[in-house]
Amino acid sequence: MDRALLLAFGRQVRQLRLDVGLSQEALADRANVHRTYLGGVERGERNVSLVNIGRIARTLGVTLPVLFDFGETSGGG
Amino acid sequence: MDRALLLAFGRQVRQLRLDVGLSQEALADRANVHRTYLGGVERGERNVSLVNIGRIARTLGVTLPVLFDFGETSGGG
Repeated sequence: MDRALLLAFGRQVRQLRLDVGLSQEALADRANVHRTYLGGVERGERNVSLVNIGRIARTLGVTLPVLFDFGETSGGG
Repeated sequence: MDRALLLAFGRQVRQLRLDVGLSQEALADRANVHRTYLGGVERGERNVSLVNIGRIARTLGVTLPVLFDFGETSGGG
């Protein structure tokens, strides 16, 4: 279930990034995270930290509740 | 601003934990995180990872958007 959460979060980041028309590189640069790290986040391969979650949300122009609004019930039961 | 986010998140975890009447130790045990780690999270001293965020939310019985509903604008501008 931990992996399911990482995958769901990564899909959400990717979708919101595409919604605002940013490349992975552009989002990574603006959010001050490494491009390969961001790629790993979007693929659900990185256990992203809260500080980086905040940077990504801010750069995407969404609040944290919106960033986490992907119908995932906090990791399943 | 990164620190502000960690502090706001920690306060939220603490408040929700008290709302359900769990001690730090009980929440940590049930969430499968270390007790001292959880204490650091609540004090805003730990850059908590998404997997642990998911475990904490699940144990508190809240969704991720609710866990992040503390009026923090994703780290400020």
